[in-house]
Amino acid sequence: MTGFRIINRDTGGDARRGQITTSHGTVETPCFMPVGTKATVKGLTPKQLEDETQSQIVLANTYHLFLRPGHELIEKLGGVHKFMGWSGPMLTDSGGFQVFSLSSLRRIEEGGVTFRSPIDGSSHHLSPESSIAIQETLGADIIMAFDECTPHPATYKEARDSLELTARWAQRSKDARKRSDNLLFGIVQGSTYSELRSLSLEKTIDVGFDGYALGGLSVGEGQAAMYDVVEEFGSQMPEQTPRYLMGVGTPEDLLVAVAAGLDMFDCVMPTRNARNGMYFTHKGPLSIKQARFREDPEPVDAQCNCYTCSNFSRAYLRHLFVSKEILSSVLATIHNLHFYNQLMTGMRAALEKDEFLQFKNGFLADYKSQEL
Amino acid sequence: MTGFRIINRDTGGDARRGQITTSHGTVETPCFMPVGTKATVKGLTPKQLEDETQSQIVLANTYHLFLRPGHELIEKLGGVHKFMGWSGPMLTDSGGFQVFSLSSLRRIEEGGVTFRSPIDGSSHHLSPESSIAIQETLGADIIMAFDECTPHPATYKEARDSLELTARWAQRSKDARKRSDNLLFGIVQGSTYSELRSLSLEKTIDVGFDGYALGGLSVGEGQAAMYDVVEEFGSQMPEQTPRYLMGVGTPEDLLVAVAAGLDMFDCVMPTRNARNGMYFTHKGPLSIKQARFREDPEPVDAQCNCYTCSNFSRAYLRHLFVSKEILSSVLATIHNLHFYNQLMTGMRAALEKDEFLQFKNGFLADYKSQEL
Repeated sequence: MTGFRIINRDTGGDARRGQITTSHGTVETPCFMPVGTKATVKGLTPKQLEDETQSQIVLANTYHLFLRPGHELIEKLGGVHKFMGWSGPMLTDSGGFQVFSLSSLRRIEEGGVTFRSPIDGSSHHLSPESSIAIQETLGADIIMAFDECTPHPATYKEARDSLELTARWAQRSKDARKRSDNLLFGIVQGSTYSELRSLSLEKTIDVGFDGYALGGLSVGEGQAAMYDVVEEFGSQMPEQTPRYLMGVGTPEDLLVAVAAGLDMFDCVMPTRNARNGMYFTHKGPLSIKQARFREDPEPVDAQCNCYTCSNFSRAYLRHLFVSKEILSSVLATIHNLHFYNQLMTGMRAALEKDEFLQFKNGFLADYKSQEL
Repeated sequence: MTGFRIINRDTGGDARRGQITTSHGTVETPCFMPVGTKATVKGLTPKQLEDETQSQIVLANTYHLFLRPGHELIEKLGGVHKFMGWSGPMLTDSGGFQVFSLSSLRRIEEGGVTFRSPIDGSSHHLSPESSIAIQETLGADIIMAFDECTPHPATYKEARDSLELTARWAQRSKDARKRSDNLLFGIVQGSTYSELRSLSLEKTIDVGFDGYALGGLSVGEGQAAMYDVVEEFGSQMPEQTPRYLMGVGTPEDLLVAVAAGLDMFDCVMPTRNARNGMYFTHKGPLSIKQARFREDPEPVDAQCNCYTCSNFSRAYLRHLFVSKEILSSVLATIHNLHFYNQLMTGMRAALEKDEFLQFKNGFLADYKSQEL
């Protein structure tokens, strides 16, 4: 049986401690999902992902896998889990966001979107029907309705037209579903207009999904505007199904969003920043390339017990980064994902003891101190 | 106690099964040493190096570490073992080979070599005394005398002058030694001139070392010329100390050299080729980028039980390589080093059963079949 149950609620707020059951295992929520764009979380083996970062669920990008190596190839090889050697739960996005952010020559019509591949310039089409078919072919445990990610800024009319299209595509996405062993989530758009977010939420709930996501955020609207949407709509999303905030965010963002009632998150920040030598720590972000770390024998984060912090000095990690060594990306990715997952573990433990606010305030006080 | 003992000898040939004892553990020989140029075997964590590739001993490059981050920094951080998180045996080369192959504006004098750093163009000097001091500061278990790597081709006179210089530097290297917890190896030069190899060997033995290396090979002389030197001089090197063939080679090279009485090897081939998508297999080398592997569900090497072959298809590994994913380098490096170490394990087991020739012929028949 797939589904969602709430284990505990924060008595003073909207945060919840839950559990998503999928065909490939259970996900404890609130949870963070590392991004495995092309069926690999960059630099890590699935074994490291599990053993060293304690990741529970991985996100893969439909857009990228559709273009290369192709979903049919992945199906022939036994599905995306087997293909990439990850036996735990997986989520695929719908491809919509990437079509809008990465492809040129997009043509958006009622039927779907025509776009060019950035790999070879070839022309492709994605629709609610084909996106769902591709995701079901890939075989993820949680799949997403095909939406139009409303760009920022958008006028009120643009945002309204866009969310209406997303709502019609939501119904078509649901109708296109063939498998019963996955969970299908709908996506709420509406830009930063409160009234339009309400309308989009209502329309998405009308279609009816196994979970609901806030989309179209972290696209340039700024932290304050994003927090407004999350804080207003987090708790308005259906209570009995998972709530997913797409593409967000910093450790602070995750704490704010969990407080607002969100359960699931994905973001390239811990992995992408790792490759740029940026480590998340309990005292705030740390850029390892700084000259002051040249001879520093201390671990990146004294409060961290990950493989990287247990075995390597800032001086060594700086040396690897400066020398452009592959291991720099690997060790930083291990640390950052471990850090994100530990943050979620901390939130879950606090929720179980009904001490969420205390945990949040304590973490943020430390994080903002920047005592590095 | 550091040292070397022979456990078993091949009754029909010169191959031997031995054990090198170092301050950081025992190395079973014949052995292969992965190259960890800048205090990292590219892409692998020390944990993967140990658990997934069964590497026993790692080589680091004095030249690279001297230039960046500097041996004094590494000493401050507790030595090269602690710096890179590798607790097993380590060998450092003398820096000579890299000065000759990587640096511009070299000036070779009796005292030593002046050269420019390829990193920032700064001028540096290495001598027998400074090379030994740097290596002892780094703290490797096996260190190498500073030699002139005779280029190929070299006239008879050039090769003789060069080996004479190496011999004088060998004595100075030995005299410069301060620590007693490492093993110091001398290097035999002499290019492809049999008479000069003899002369160099004699002079190196006269100085007296804890082990002897054949240097100046795999520098363009070709496989046949290299085999001539190895087969003529392998068994002429002192019997009671380890024999090290520097910078070699292919699986076939290793079998030939072990048959000739060599014990230790290092080469960038398994690691560098891995990053270029070349996998060593029991049926010969395999280039993963080939279109024929696009949908291939089989592992790279059906006879291999490494992490990569146990979990991933050729199709997935090709996808990673074509997509320029970091994990491509990681998984190929795991496989290739595992393959090399398994080959050495196979040779050691065969030597223990006195079946070396049989093992060698069987392996090569399979390897050359190219039935991929």
